[in-house]
Amino acid sequence: MTTAATDLADPAAMALDLRYGTDHPSGLRWNPTIAGLLDHRSVRAYLPDPLPVGTIETLVAAAQSAATSSNLQLWSVVAVSDADKRAKLAELAGGQKHIAEAPVILLFIADLARPAMIANDAGVAAEGYDFLESFVVAAIDAALAAQNAVVAAESLGLATVYIGAMRNDPEAVAALIGLPPRAMVVFGLVVGHADPARPAAVKPRLPQTVVLHHESYALEHQRAGIAAYDDTARTFQTAQGQNPVGWRALIVSRGRNAAALNGRDRLKVALRALGIALR
Amino acid sequence: MTTAATDLADPAAMALDLRYGTDHPSGLRWNPTIAGLLDHRSVRAYLPDPLPVGTIETLVAAAQSAATSSNLQLWSVVAVSDADKRAKLAELAGGQKHIAEAPVILLFIADLARPAMIANDAGVAAEGYDFLESFVVAAIDAALAAQNAVVAAESLGLATVYIGAMRNDPEAVAALIGLPPRAMVVFGLVVGHADPARPAAVKPRLPQTVVLHHESYALEHQRAGIAAYDDTARTFQTAQGQNPVGWRALIVSRGRNAAALNGRDRLKVALRALGIALR
Repeated sequence: MTTAATDLADPAAMALDLRYGTDHPSGLRWNPTIAGLLDHRSVRAYLPDPLPVGTIETLVAAAQSAATSSNLQLWSVVAVSDADKRAKLAELAGGQKHIAEAPVILLFIADLARPAMIANDAGVAAEGYDFLESFVVAAIDAALAAQNAVVAAESLGLATVYIGAMRNDPEAVAALIGLPPRAMVVFGLVVGHADPARPAAVKPRLPQTVVLHHESYALEHQRAGIAAYDDTARTFQTAQGQNPVGWRALIVSRGRNAAALNGRDRLKVALRALGIALR
Repeated sequence: MTTAATDLADPAAMALDLRYGTDHPSGLRWNPTIAGLLDHRSVRAYLPDPLPVGTIETLVAAAQSAATSSNLQLWSVVAVSDADKRAKLAELAGGQKHIAEAPVILLFIADLARPAMIANDAGVAAEGYDFLESFVVAAIDAALAAQNAVVAAESLGLATVYIGAMRNDPEAVAALIGLPPRAMVVFGLVVGHADPARPAAVKPRLPQTVVLHHESYALEHQRAGIAAYDDTARTFQTAQGQNPVGWRALIVSRGRNAAALNGRDRLKVALRALGIALR
């Protein structure tokens, strides 16, 4: 189910070329929503223009409409527009200028403080929220919510980029926005108007033969697709004016040792300091 | 920014009524994509009809188009269509019949096996993937991907439901689909055609005043919105023929103790048994 040649009049084939390189699945189903999803790009260059009135409320309504495990709703969001706070967050993220440049960053919170308050108000223990499972639920539900916000933002012509580096120093980020115990920013989401003078490209992904499995998982057979993707990544990196190191080198370098994690090797310690026990 | 009365000719107001009850934000931005996101419902009643050709590849292309931390792509998906395997998964999920009823369940995998293989092939250590941070990245990226698949599926008129209960017995689920060490199913996603004879409702969520904060987080002030939501939840539960216990009771009962987690209190032990160290 792959094709080498692309019909330039076929929007699906053109979108798949950008997402996978030339060797991509064909025969996909297509509509404007799917076209929008395939066209996603993470944008790191913004105009300073504010978001139109009602935008944040719209993104949060979309976010809250995502599924949430057992309807527990173990996440919250803090919208930071204040320029000083954004400058500080940019610094905490290792100097990511787009956080200071765009008008707002949405900080998505794994929120175990709210259920703890509710249980405390009811005069009962909330031991269940001390387990790793509850943190995993909160982080996953925050991600489902945030991704709906991304889809909504892009449908409005806005751009976004996730900021995982909010986990480089979780205690400092928590202090900046006054989080109570048992709450932690799992990631940020910058939202704004992309600067048309500095456009972002669609980044190619691994072939579906590597990521998608049927009935059972197979590891060894992924090597051929990974090698092909290394070439796709090099072509993309060259076109972007980057060092064409490929993808396997990135995987190796990121996993090399604790220091390669930019402080996130101490995430467990940080979570416990924030009152998230991970039992 | 709330309104009590709804203009029945206003599709945004009608969608917000369903999502929040009558006391919802107004002045939201609106388009067909946002309308689709707001209309999400988790469906637990399916027809046996197979998915149209090309559907799974389309959902995976949408999923892969979501952002992924540093382009690490630490997730994979196993599409399970085999009836015996789905019956077994339904049983492992505590008897969730919709897993056996719908034609396919997508099992989303936090995949630290792939980077470990790549590092091993390169003859270098992959210590960084042993840290909690790498598992968090994998789980969040799997969630971002899955949510794009949900949006794509619903845009095609299909229905979905997430299955967090894949974490009730992670070792058994891993064994069923032949996962290697360092890989774990973080959740499932059932996809199929909703049974029109057993329709699902839009579930109301917490007021935005509880979930959305500006510049800094506030816990205490959430109590009024939570109390109002308890009433909204009771109205919904009554309309659904459920016991109208409200929402706070759910939060309290889920957090009561380890036993309330349906086996997921041992998630840390299970992850370590699967080779995910969580350093």
